[in-house]
Amino acid sequence: MLPLEQKVLERIKPSLKEKEKLEKTADYLMRRAIQIAKKERITDVKVQLVGSAARNTWITGTHDLDIFISFDPSLPREKLEEYGLFIGHELAKESRFWEEGYAEHPYTKMNYAGFDVDIVPCYRVTDASRIISAVDRTPFHNRFIKERIKGLEDDVLLLKQFMKAGGTYGSELKTRGFSGYLTELLIIHYGSFKNVLEAAAVWEPNQKIEFLKPTKEYSEPLQVIDPTDAGRNVAAALSLDKFCLFVDLCRQYLKEPNESFFVRKNPVPLSDEQVIQRMNKRTSSIIALKFHTPEVVEDILYPQLFKMQKSVEALLEKQDFQLIKSGIWVGKDVVLIIELENSQIATVKKHRGPPVWVKQHAEMFREKYTNRTDVFAFYIEDGKYVAEVPRKYTTASSLLENEIYNCSLGKQVAKNIKDEYEILSGKNILQIKDNDYRAFLNEFL
Amino acid sequence: MLPLEQKVLERIKPSLKEKEKLEKTADYLMRRAIQIAKKERITDVKVQLVGSAARNTWITGTHDLDIFISFDPSLPREKLEEYGLFIGHELAKESRFWEEGYAEHPYTKMNYAGFDVDIVPCYRVTDASRIISAVDRTPFHNRFIKERIKGLEDDVLLLKQFMKAGGTYGSELKTRGFSGYLTELLIIHYGSFKNVLEAAAVWEPNQKIEFLKPTKEYSEPLQVIDPTDAGRNVAAALSLDKFCLFVDLCRQYLKEPNESFFVRKNPVPLSDEQVIQRMNKRTSSIIALKFHTPEVVEDILYPQLFKMQKSVEALLEKQDFQLIKSGIWVGKDVVLIIELENSQIATVKKHRGPPVWVKQHAEMFREKYTNRTDVFAFYIEDGKYVAEVPRKYTTASSLLENEIYNCSLGKQVAKNIKDEYEILSGKNILQIKDNDYRAFLNEFL
Repeated sequence: MLPLEQKVLERIKPSLKEKEKLEKTADYLMRRAIQIAKKERITDVKVQLVGSAARNTWITGTHDLDIFISFDPSLPREKLEEYGLFIGHELAKESRFWEEGYAEHPYTKMNYAGFDVDIVPCYRVTDASRIISAVDRTPFHNRFIKERIKGLEDDVLLLKQFMKAGGTYGSELKTRGFSGYLTELLIIHYGSFKNVLEAAAVWEPNQKIEFLKPTKEYSEPLQVIDPTDAGRNVAAALSLDKFCLFVDLCRQYLKEPNESFFVRKNPVPLSDEQVIQRMNKRTSSIIALKFHTPEVVEDILYPQLFKMQKSVEALLEKQDFQLIKSGIWVGKDVVLIIELENSQIATVKKHRGPPVWVKQHAEMFREKYTNRTDVFAFYIEDGKYVAEVPRKYTTASSLLENEIYNCSLGKQVAKNIKDEYEILSGKNILQIKDNDYRAFLNEFL
Repeated sequence: MLPLEQKVLERIKPSLKEKEKLEKTADYLMRRAIQIAKKERITDVKVQLVGSAARNTWITGTHDLDIFISFDPSLPREKLEEYGLFIGHELAKESRFWEEGYAEHPYTKMNYAGFDVDIVPCYRVTDASRIISAVDRTPFHNRFIKERIKGLEDDVLLLKQFMKAGGTYGSELKTRGFSGYLTELLIIHYGSFKNVLEAAAVWEPNQKIEFLKPTKEYSEPLQVIDPTDAGRNVAAALSLDKFCLFVDLCRQYLKEPNESFFVRKNPVPLSDEQVIQRMNKRTSSIIALKFHTPEVVEDILYPQLFKMQKSVEALLEKQDFQLIKSGIWVGKDVVLIIELENSQIATVKKHRGPPVWVKQHAEMFREKYTNRTDVFAFYIEDGKYVAEVPRKYTTASSLLENEIYNCSLGKQVAKNIKDEYEILSGKNILQIKDNDYRAFLNEFL
């Protein structure tokens, strides 16, 4: 371990005091859960701490407690949900704040003594390949890691911090990066932080790490077969770009190790003048679609936003607008910001038809376009008919205004856009003053 | 023959008086040529009329006389040229105007009694495949057609007029259409004007008409093996677009026969206001390169101009300007006019690099672009590195001004552009008032 890594560890490793507090809190909550169950005559209940808190692989300041309450698989689902929520709600009475979460079934989220606590009911199945609900897998993951991670915790911490700083940590659909479990598996597989980085520096898409023989073919860039379930790729959520970004960061770090690789760089918000300066340097066209952020969880929201983004990009490109890039900012509002070569394009469009010698098609094309009164010209070029036709949309904003509802938007996004949206062009994107948005512009422009 | 075709024929067929005048003139010039040769003791000379005048396939008003003076193949080339020019010059003494022409060897062009007369020396070879100079072939063509064209002259006239009106007649490098000889061969092969049109309506590139078995493979769209030389494609000069244009016109005419197909449509010159109106409708960007027309014959000039056109188009497209089309006008000046989506493009350019996992290339790309101070941003997209770099040229005029000499221009064109050129943008193309140029704009815009 490099001295700089030691230094990073000192910074990110929880103190003994912090650990004791976590253990005490977890123990208390688990004991209380059992008491509540007993009192309510809920039998055959087991309570366990899972996740990084249980494995000593949590970074200082991240106070997540995942407490799983497991039931026998014979218990009907409604009962499992009822019991799970009951215990959760009872526990929550001691919390500062709580709400109901929903994954495959409902669970309780609360803030207790500074900890983000999830009380999750699950089935205690005999084998991870026979799970009833997705969360049933977690205890198996927990056991697999706990049995192997001893002595490697510091390496996990370094890798997690490296990924957090680089923006590749987190398997939720907003990030599409590496999950905590995946990080731990990588350390177990390669043996150390350094080994993971050296291996990843030469990863290629279709990279396989087979704790078990896979039972099917995968197409994801990284394929880590779950040691507790041969039918599952632990890295299924990892996107190609996050995969590549991690590879890229590994190479850079190995070439010139530096503490900055463990520090998340937050862009500073740009002032109006700074944004204008950036735009004047690029001389491209900026257009933005703004609407109220749907009130749904991120794992539902982000796939819809990405779908909208792809769909709007495709719409623009199909209508001959030349896309440079687009980005999404989410705050109170969603802003889809799009950079184009030019938001205004020529009216005349060269529409290429079939080769003249493909008689039937050629005649149909000729018939169609020479009968139109709006055709600028009709001629032959490189053996093909060409009709010069007027474009329907010559500005990106008129295109968006007229065709946004024909894009694939996702349910909640579509609804909110229908309610109200705004299209901002050029300097009008400065109407939004939000600091986080201005920081986003710093990255985008 | 359709009544309308009869009517066209009446218009384009030379009158008896016109024919008599042509015959008389040709006879006189041929007799004089023999006299001159005799007087100068040039022996073993034969004189003959060739071309459409000799075959009764000329259109009223086109007064071309091609008089070939043939010598024995044993005569040295210098002697052939000397004798040929001597006879030509002597004949020219009676002409209103004359000059020296140059194909493979020099010949005499003159205007005599309203006729454009060429006095061309050639070798009297025994077989067209054993010619010494390209013109030696002509007497063979002449004989082949004369022996077969009797009774088909009217069909040739119609086809020639149809091609002239449609812009597909003329095998010179400016036009790249059908030669007179090719037109006659088509009539002989298919049997009539109507048959040619019906056949051509379903022509496809690689169309073969084999008067003889070809001795090699051809790649031209139309392949008519010369009946006097199996090693030659009579339609070698025909471009794909002229081939297609002819096919297109044949189909249209057969669908709705109309006298207008035999009348050349000359576009009317546009006024300033009309040009501006057209430009405002198209909302594209127009830019033009103007320079003095090199004083070389068209068959040398046009290939250079087309080469320049292709090269300038490629330059613009390589630098991300989106070409709609370009055109060339030739008068006192040459004007290369170019229509672009936009003559101004964004400064920022997305330069896509290799996939991140192609380690060596990826590292070189990263090294190169992250060390540049002018890079706007460096990131990963779709698994590839992207460097946002500033474009060197953001206006088409600055690009042309700086890079025109790096284009393939051809010798004389390059020289004249070096001497002086001008780049006209937008409405500045109206600086040129020439009527023919304004008619060209009518076709272009």
